[in-house]
Amino acid sequence: MAPDNDAVFMARALELAERGRGFVTPNPRVGAVLVRDGAIVAEGWHKVFGGPHAEVECLREAEERGIDPAGATMYVTLEPCNHFGKTPPCSRTVLEAGVSRVVIGCLDPNPVAGGGAETLRQGGVAVDVGILGQECRDAVADFVVYKTMGRPYVTLKLAMTLDGRIAARTGDSAWVSGPESRRRVHRMRAASQAVMVGGGTFRADDPRLTHRLEVVDPLSGNPQPLAVVVTRSLPPADARFALVRERSPSLVFLTSEAEARAAAGLALAKRGVRVYGLPLRDEGELDLLPGLTRLRDEARVFRLLCEGGGGLAGQLVAQGLADELALFYAPKVLADAEAVPGFSGRIIPRMADAAGFRFCGLRQVGEDILVTARPAAEPSA
Amino acid sequence: MAPDNDAVFMARALELAERGRGFVTPNPRVGAVLVRDGAIVAEGWHKVFGGPHAEVECLREAEERGIDPAGATMYVTLEPCNHFGKTPPCSRTVLEAGVSRVVIGCLDPNPVAGGGAETLRQGGVAVDVGILGQECRDAVADFVVYKTMGRPYVTLKLAMTLDGRIAARTGDSAWVSGPESRRRVHRMRAASQAVMVGGGTFRADDPRLTHRLEVVDPLSGNPQPLAVVVTRSLPPADARFALVRERSPSLVFLTSEAEARAAAGLALAKRGVRVYGLPLRDEGELDLLPGLTRLRDEARVFRLLCEGGGGLAGQLVAQGLADELALFYAPKVLADAEAVPGFSGRIIPRMADAAGFRFCGLRQVGEDILVTARPAAEPSA
Repeated sequence: MAPDNDAVFMARALELAERGRGFVTPNPRVGAVLVRDGAIVAEGWHKVFGGPHAEVECLREAEERGIDPAGATMYVTLEPCNHFGKTPPCSRTVLEAGVSRVVIGCLDPNPVAGGGAETLRQGGVAVDVGILGQECRDAVADFVVYKTMGRPYVTLKLAMTLDGRIAARTGDSAWVSGPESRRRVHRMRAASQAVMVGGGTFRADDPRLTHRLEVVDPLSGNPQPLAVVVTRSLPPADARFALVRERSPSLVFLTSEAEARAAAGLALAKRGVRVYGLPLRDEGELDLLPGLTRLRDEARVFRLLCEGGGGLAGQLVAQGLADELALFYAPKVLADAEAVPGFSGRIIPRMADAAGFRFCGLRQVGEDILVTARPAAEPSA
Repeated sequence: MAPDNDAVFMARALELAERGRGFVTPNPRVGAVLVRDGAIVAEGWHKVFGGPHAEVECLREAEERGIDPAGATMYVTLEPCNHFGKTPPCSRTVLEAGVSRVVIGCLDPNPVAGGGAETLRQGGVAVDVGILGQECRDAVADFVVYKTMGRPYVTLKLAMTLDGRIAARTGDSAWVSGPESRRRVHRMRAASQAVMVGGGTFRADDPRLTHRLEVVDPLSGNPQPLAVVVTRSLPPADARFALVRERSPSLVFLTSEAEARAAAGLALAKRGVRVYGLPLRDEGELDLLPGLTRLRDEARVFRLLCEGGGGLAGQLVAQGLADELALFYAPKVLADAEAVPGFSGRIIPRMADAAGFRFCGLRQVGEDILVTARPAAEPSA
């Protein structure tokens, strides 16, 4: 099999994996295809948390179609699991099916589940690892973060003008991006367990941070994400903010330890709002990592969507916590140096010290473009 | 012929047109294909200024291949010319070749040359106009500007961070974009008759504004573009700026009328530097249009590449003179509100009053992305 064909089949497996987005968390998204004589004969993907893995779905489709997998090649984006979790080990299942070659996108970063490639090799299966490796690692980047780093995977979404502004100098931001982009943001909210904003955005926009999807998924029911506000000064518990009035049981404030213990913090807590006190960093900024870790541990937040504003976006970048940038650029230019910047709060004298990312997606969304990027250096635990 | 196929053949004609970039100015870029029985049998494009038009090149290739164009369909991105210019009218040539259908991307905006579609129809040829019309209009947008508006076509190129900054707060900008992007900028300079910067960039960067292409085109010899500096205050004629010392005969300053008449202006003029005095706008800014018009009329500048800085970029947008944005975004974030913005100088209180563009290109260039956009509203003469 030519390496080019390997890439084509793995690209298809990646497409299938993507279908699981929003349904499999906190499992990884995985896709698989079975190939015989240069053609795909069966496909599968991990469809729902706790359900069969992609390899099993793929073999099941082969069986339904009356295709014997013996001697075929399986392409799977993530190393087949090697342990008894919610399902039996896929490495065993694939081995017993008689597949003669397995092409793996990337190895399982979860030490408990890993080892599947070795099991297959010992069983006499030809195994290749690393086809479209970067893309396959990207497909499970969220899983890697919440599995091995104990915090949610953070997507930082901003809607900016071409000159990087999220609002005019007056704060007016209606609207930066177009209706297609805003619809896509609602889908992003629905695929997250929490949506986070900074105190400035909370006060200026009085947001609800809910998704407004019209089509409700029958499996998940599209639960509303938790609302998370990062602010140095808490509002009074009787404040007229929509989040406080309407969403108290699913609202979390991340603030300083002192503020969490003070009157507003206690009054909010009495109302059912969670208030997490955070240590301060050397520059006096809130240290966000302990707050994110608590969100994962105490509220089962695996994917967190941050929607700005500029100060919080700058802090996520500064603290190495922006796992993915999802930047909607509208075809607009303000050219006003006093307009509100999408990222702020840092002092960086040299261009070489800018935070480095790499692009991993680029597409038109209605009249806007959506640029996605990840940190140039992989996060380390 | 299904409309879908029409679009496929016109897309190929557009690809061919693009090959003329940098060689045909001030003619428009045009491509043509001849189709028989659903397959392309000959191709042509306008290759060099003053040379045969695309339709003639296409028919010539058909002849060389022994293909009779009678009864075939020709796809051409721009309406065949209808007048005797440097070459005989293409409408006649196409008619005499016996082509039975002509599909035209967009009509000729040049009133002297237009009317080709009508000539063809009167000759009994089936004519369709507007296939991939927007794309075909974009392909001749430069031509439309310098032909009907009497000024150069202005491409505004900036290399920015994802948060829209062209330099750190100290002015340090080495480097924003990567080597592939910088190489592409040299090609853009070579395809322009002038490269323009603002006074701030002139003083801070001391640029040469030359292209440094390694491969020299034998036809054009890749002449260096004119250097244009827009500034309210001229430097002394003996200043140690590279442009003044090395490029005086091909250097133009755009400044105020008063400054042009003052000592520095006269001393620069004596040195061979052209100094164009411009009127001021209500806000006290230089009115750029008369300067651009003189560049076209007196220096044969048809394509002008502006490379910033932020103030000049903001003025081009404010004065409706940015015909094309070529924005290189590097995968970097400064998050420093005091970093140098790519566009500045305006006061825009409402987002709805931002200058509107539409995206027309989106591609990865090395580690960067290149976003191209044009004004949402077509420029009017």
